[in-house]
Amino acid sequence: MLERALTHRSYAPEHNERLEFLGDSVLGCVIAKHLYDAFPQLSEGELSRLRSNLVKEETLVTFAQQLKLGSLLRLGEGERKSGGFRRPSILADAMEALFGAILLDGGYAEAEKAVLGLFVPYLQKVDIHTLGKDAKTLLQEYLQGKRIPLPTYTIIATGGLAHEQSFQVECAIPKLKISTRGEGSSRRSAEQQAAQAAYQQLARTS
Amino acid sequence: MLERALTHRSYAPEHNERLEFLGDSVLGCVIAKHLYDAFPQLSEGELSRLRSNLVKEETLVTFAQQLKLGSLLRLGEGERKSGGFRRPSILADAMEALFGAILLDGGYAEAEKAVLGLFVPYLQKVDIHTLGKDAKTLLQEYLQGKRIPLPTYTIIATGGLAHEQSFQVECAIPKLKISTRGEGSSRRSAEQQAAQAAYQQLARTS
Repeated sequence: MLERALTHRSYAPEHNERLEFLGDSVLGCVIAKHLYDAFPQLSEGELSRLRSNLVKEETLVTFAQQLKLGSLLRLGEGERKSGGFRRPSILADAMEALFGAILLDGGYAEAEKAVLGLFVPYLQKVDIHTLGKDAKTLLQEYLQGKRIPLPTYTIIATGGLAHEQSFQVECAIPKLKISTRGEGSSRRSAEQQAAQAAYQQLARTS
Repeated sequence: MLERALTHRSYAPEHNERLEFLGDSVLGCVIAKHLYDAFPQLSEGELSRLRSNLVKEETLVTFAQQLKLGSLLRLGEGERKSGGFRRPSILADAMEALFGAILLDGGYAEAEKAVLGLFVPYLQKVDIHTLGKDAKTLLQEYLQGKRIPLPTYTIIATGGLAHEQSFQVECAIPKLKISTRGEGSSRRSAEQQAAQAAYQQLARTS
């Protein structure tokens, strides 16, 4: 089952996709139970946000790298030559398939142990109150907590052709004499960049 | 925990939403494992389709009705008076919360037993090959299996005002001398209706 979990579909018909389906499910359940127990004060919505920001490709890739899974993957020739052993989606899928294989081999309790063995140390390093929130939300929550009027976002400049437009946005918080700028290919992303800059400025001064 | 699982947020601050989060997760995991074992020939994509069409509000409401959960719900006055004990979302949420409570009380094995006790008999009554597929897909797969040219869909009439348009579509399978009609508020739904009628006609004659 370990071999199967590390076999990409490009290598053989006995690949890891079904195990990945299983592993994704057991992972979701183990993390839900852990968060439920660890954070009795969090609402259902906050638990969901936390979980979806923990159980994602990026995190799984980190674990796959810790375990040096890349060098153990069984990939078809094409994937091997094009660096498939470093591709995030392939690493994350193999990681999930591994959890699925442990569930089949050792039952739920063993799968739980394996998942928590990786996730609990990781959870201790992240800030659960900010995890997965975007910069505009973080900034807004910070200001509301201090009863400071919310920032205003203003488009300062736009440029580029229709399919590669660029936006410059200013984020202003007059009360704190803060004014930052952000740039992006959409108004939304420019606002996020500007909010990010303002939030970092606040973090440095508070 | 049973009381908590049956308590809607309109009734008390100690309501069932966190348990529902937990129950949804354990339900997903138990069903994934069951489908994995029961259908070794199905691909990851087919397992996902099956699961999402099993674990949905409609199914959970059926179980809640079997268990007569409605009369046991603890609802705030407003919800009680407006018939909240019959509302599908409230029933389905309570059903999930119940699975969550069993997980906390008895551990994974007990939750698995409770979930499968309800789902396995239900699974025996559904056709896993058609579950969750729309009528156009079913019709297409049936015809492809018999190497019959695919149906053509033609708009026959449109009517109504902009915000309440109606479409009439014909589904024709010349090789089988089949021609059916469907009506809907969008072209898509009219096509599905027409496909549904053709599929039923085929089922009757084959």
